[in-house]
Amino acid sequence: MTILVALTGWHVDSWVERLERLLPGRRVVRLGDAYDPAAVTYAVAWKHPPGAFRGLPNLKAIFSLGAGVDHLMGDPDLPDVPITRVVDDDLTNRMSEYVVLHCLMHLRQQRRYDAQQRAHMWEDDRHQPAARDVRVGVMGLGVLGQDAARKLAVMGFDVAGWSRTPKDCPGLQVFTGEAERAAFLARTDILVLLLPLTPETHGIANYALFKGLARGGRLGGPVFVNAGRGGLQVEEDILRALDDGTLMAASLDVFETEPLPDSSRFWDHPSVIVTPHNAAMSDPDSIIRLVARQIARFEAGEPLEHLVDRQRGY
Amino acid sequence: MTILVALTGWHVDSWVERLERLLPGRRVVRLGDAYDPAAVTYAVAWKHPPGAFRGLPNLKAIFSLGAGVDHLMGDPDLPDVPITRVVDDDLTNRMSEYVVLHCLMHLRQQRRYDAQQRAHMWEDDRHQPAARDVRVGVMGLGVLGQDAARKLAVMGFDVAGWSRTPKDCPGLQVFTGEAERAAFLARTDILVLLLPLTPETHGIANYALFKGLARGGRLGGPVFVNAGRGGLQVEEDILRALDDGTLMAASLDVFETEPLPDSSRFWDHPSVIVTPHNAAMSDPDSIIRLVARQIARFEAGEPLEHLVDRQRGY
Repeated sequence: MTILVALTGWHVDSWVERLERLLPGRRVVRLGDAYDPAAVTYAVAWKHPPGAFRGLPNLKAIFSLGAGVDHLMGDPDLPDVPITRVVDDDLTNRMSEYVVLHCLMHLRQQRRYDAQQRAHMWEDDRHQPAARDVRVGVMGLGVLGQDAARKLAVMGFDVAGWSRTPKDCPGLQVFTGEAERAAFLARTDILVLLLPLTPETHGIANYALFKGLARGGRLGGPVFVNAGRGGLQVEEDILRALDDGTLMAASLDVFETEPLPDSSRFWDHPSVIVTPHNAAMSDPDSIIRLVARQIARFEAGEPLEHLVDRQRGY
Repeated sequence: MTILVALTGWHVDSWVERLERLLPGRRVVRLGDAYDPAAVTYAVAWKHPPGAFRGLPNLKAIFSLGAGVDHLMGDPDLPDVPITRVVDDDLTNRMSEYVVLHCLMHLRQQRRYDAQQRAHMWEDDRHQPAARDVRVGVMGLGVLGQDAARKLAVMGFDVAGWSRTPKDCPGLQVFTGEAERAAFLARTDILVLLLPLTPETHGIANYALFKGLARGGRLGGPVFVNAGRGGLQVEEDILRALDDGTLMAASLDVFETEPLPDSSRFWDHPSVIVTPHNAAMSDPDSIIRLVARQIARFEAGEPLEHLVDRQRGY
């Protein structure tokens, strides 16, 4: 009954400690530790080194520590066991904090007023649009997208959503599939990307997509907000679109390469707000409570929650 | 049947035009124009020169162009006629945009990430509190305060309100009057000031008030947000509180002197977000529609809406 913690980029020790505290009596091991592969029944994973789960004959389930599982799906040696991801109110709320914050920053021209403050300049804009005059389009209507859409609507924005598959979201105008994507983009002033990263969505935020966004909206030009994954965006295309006016501004929390290289033009771009992939940082305690609950359910013969569909890739 | 437009600080002509458009057949005059004082039945006012309403024997009502009427109350020659103020969904929504934006900016440490972006620094904060861990206290539970409180709660903040008089706000923890003010402050990490400016509230945001705010909250120190009136705050006290750690940060949209003088320390203070009194800019068209509706009601013998109580001063 060993739990293998396989992750990179985070402090492994703090996760091991939390698991030991919450699941006393289990053995919790790191990748480099000496352990009996046959004893490993569960794995906890975040950006594991590919192949880390090879040769574990009794592995029963893998628990991703994040909402996305693209970090798992790239491993050709991923064992054929159930995989769950994190669906957690805390993470959902934090993502919506980020999305609402950035939509409001663009609506209220916060970067302009920041610059004015630095210049000791007192100047307002009597023609600032209200939230109801600005159309936000949320691409991806999973738990995160639906929560963000709901909160944006409470703030007064004119919100619609797009989903690959039909979704029932009471009170939200939903566009579905390829057939309705152009219409969705054409009514969108601020595009919020919250899609999972899969082979199908890789690079979806490209020049052609930006070209499809609404022209003539009240903000003065389309805005792109990516709080999903860096792999969803083509950064060369974002820069081209910003340079030629196809996009007016962007908030980017995720990047093709993270940390964002010092040479990236995004850092100094006057119309880009860069954050270090912290839109929705998971609360480790609440994630580990979720993992412990999943293990308890599994061992009681109950179905696992938030199972990943390998076919869809999320 | 003349309407007198008495204002400073705004473009008089654009207001005159709007009134003429919406109320054809009425004569609309400016303060300096030649007009028969006995013909003036209504006045539209914003920061009028004191005494401007003297000698208007047939004046029936004054319509303030803003939500606050402190600009009127200071005039010792204010005629004893009904005064109405603007209560307008558009203005309310804009104020809540500002309040939610600034609470989120402090919660999510936006100024820190702005500085990191300028320095090309990729560094996140794994211990960022969630909105539910941060207690926002809204002082003033009129239409604006109640709307802001509701939206802050939707965003996940732990919200309470304080009101001078008992208020029934479903779902909101309300503290009432002097007796409960200390308890309200002691549970408040972010103080949002939305009180009307009256002789009683003048200078209410002083050092003693800031000293009463919660210590040991998850943000690292109390934050002050003033979206009400500059006269509510003692700027020397804000600076002293910021300097000695009694306050951690502030968002100020209003000031004792506006425009904020170039010499003010607020401009360059690293913990202060300055905006040029634009938290809730009224949409002139929707204000004039409101004035026209008030005149129609008045002339139909119906009661005026949003009447100012002179005793309370708002």
